[in-house]
Amino acid sequence: MSQPLIAVDLGGTSLRAALFAGNSPQPERHKKTSTQADKGPDHVFRRIIKTIEAVLPESTQGLRIGVGAPGPIDPYEGVVIEAPNLPGWKDVPLQAKLQSHFDCPVRLGNDANVAGLGEWRHGAGKQADPMLYMTISTGIGGGVIQGGEIMLGQRGLAAEFGHITVEPGGPVCGCGQHGHLEAVAAGPAIARMANARLDKGAKSSLAQLRDKGRSITAIEVGRAANEDDPLALEIIQQAGETIGLALASLLHVFNPQTVVLGGGVSLIGQPLFDSIEHSLHQHVMHPAYLQNFNLVPAALGDDAGLVGAMVLAASA
Amino acid sequence: MSQPLIAVDLGGTSLRAALFAGNSPQPERHKKTSTQADKGPDHVFRRIIKTIEAVLPESTQGLRIGVGAPGPIDPYEGVVIEAPNLPGWKDVPLQAKLQSHFDCPVRLGNDANVAGLGEWRHGAGKQADPMLYMTISTGIGGGVIQGGEIMLGQRGLAAEFGHITVEPGGPVCGCGQHGHLEAVAAGPAIARMANARLDKGAKSSLAQLRDKGRSITAIEVGRAANEDDPLALEIIQQAGETIGLALASLLHVFNPQTVVLGGGVSLIGQPLFDSIEHSLHQHVMHPAYLQNFNLVPAALGDDAGLVGAMVLAASA
Repeated sequence: MSQPLIAVDLGGTSLRAALFAGNSPQPERHKKTSTQADKGPDHVFRRIIKTIEAVLPESTQGLRIGVGAPGPIDPYEGVVIEAPNLPGWKDVPLQAKLQSHFDCPVRLGNDANVAGLGEWRHGAGKQADPMLYMTISTGIGGGVIQGGEIMLGQRGLAAEFGHITVEPGGPVCGCGQHGHLEAVAAGPAIARMANARLDKGAKSSLAQLRDKGRSITAIEVGRAANEDDPLALEIIQQAGETIGLALASLLHVFNPQTVVLGGGVSLIGQPLFDSIEHSLHQHVMHPAYLQNFNLVPAALGDDAGLVGAMVLAASA
Repeated sequence: MSQPLIAVDLGGTSLRAALFAGNSPQPERHKKTSTQADKGPDHVFRRIIKTIEAVLPESTQGLRIGVGAPGPIDPYEGVVIEAPNLPGWKDVPLQAKLQSHFDCPVRLGNDANVAGLGEWRHGAGKQADPMLYMTISTGIGGGVIQGGEIMLGQRGLAAEFGHITVEPGGPVCGCGQHGHLEAVAAGPAIARMANARLDKGAKSSLAQLRDKGRSITAIEVGRAANEDDPLALEIIQQAGETIGLALASLLHVFNPQTVVLGGGVSLIGQPLFDSIEHSLHQHVMHPAYLQNFNLVPAALGDDAGLVGAMVLAASA
């Protein structure tokens, strides 16, 4: 087997490793396990080693490893600076540790950046240049792919699309600032908007769900919107309007060929995409930005990070 | 003389050409004239030819030409798509026309992008990577320099920092959209804010100026702010707050090493820079974005475009 590549997707809940060969996005071997993040960095590191070992090829000649990890990370030095979902991880030199353990080149990337790289190479991005990736779930992350490479910035902290201000003085964000896109349009914001309207007595199929003791999440709001529930549609449209406004600013700044939207909230699908498209068309300053431009849903789902880590490994 | 480079800075009012040699930012020859834009594209093209001829070296062996022009332009094809300050310019293939006239390689760039390149190579940018350039005058333009190259986007329309939304539903922008940075913090917005406050009877040295029949421009507001006029200081701080808010978003998106601020409004100096710095520190999501980071005034003044066009010529 020529050029064996190991991809690792390290998350707060689950940990995956896969073996790829010959640049095909279909893994030869794949292993998924729990991260057990609460047991601390040393324990998690041993689990990473074991998970990689479970997919190692017979010959490790020419082996290279790519890792996507939650950030902030330093992709130049290969260090996890801090990871809110991985308790105790602070300045962990993950790249150097893996390099010395497996005696092969290793590259580390921010998980959202790496997922964007995966979508660019083997998913919905179709090798567009430049391509923006935005993942909308509990938070909002991003990636910019230019000339087939992740745009890193001076310390690897670039493409934090969730932390663009879209409503000065608006709702508080996870980062402590106010009115960021993430605070206004990610999953928790969608749930918050729905609950606030229900508290005021708005009519909706969601009210019945809540009466049965179900908590209303963005997924529930999305499901109701897809069943034409007027309140749910209104809230998804409001989130889409804001995402479209932020994307218009990003179009003016990057003039991208393609924007790929991923993450759990993006799975709401048509009601959300329709309102984002509408808002984008309304807010873009010149039609030239929309010529030869595509806004598309992500294609790789949960595999984006793993496929991206494989692409990263190939450049290690 | 080795490697003669001709730089052209085409503006709506004035037209400049200079001869550079050996990558020194000091021109060997320099010619400045009026554009006479009202006489149409053919007349202006002949003036460009004449101005270049006035600075041509004895031997044109190895000659290359770089041109900064108002946009939108297509830097890949070398075409001025449209230029609000150059009446009648629509899809003018300036690069091809100059190439065929002078029989040498020519490169065309957007004026703000090119000025950014000049500041990066020979000015305040000190070859930072990445470097953002923002020019604030009647409008707000920008440039992103990554790896020593202008970030263009798919059609050369990137880095329009003036058209980031900072106040949804806010004042109308020159582009027709609402609440863009340019509409809220460029020269005309500063003048508008001052005049609105004076109309309401605010006390200020600017009121006396206005009583004498002088119209209040951003430059007047800046001068008064530098003389500690409270109203003027308040307005400059308000503009600085908004510029800092937009820069915080740009830091999260690009994680730049340096931001260079140029343009007429930036010459207001300390009162403006102090409030931008304050706002930036207040709005940045993590101190890591400000480590090894510099916000600096442009160093090349009106020469930035010409020096940048020389750098562009060197890559033609």
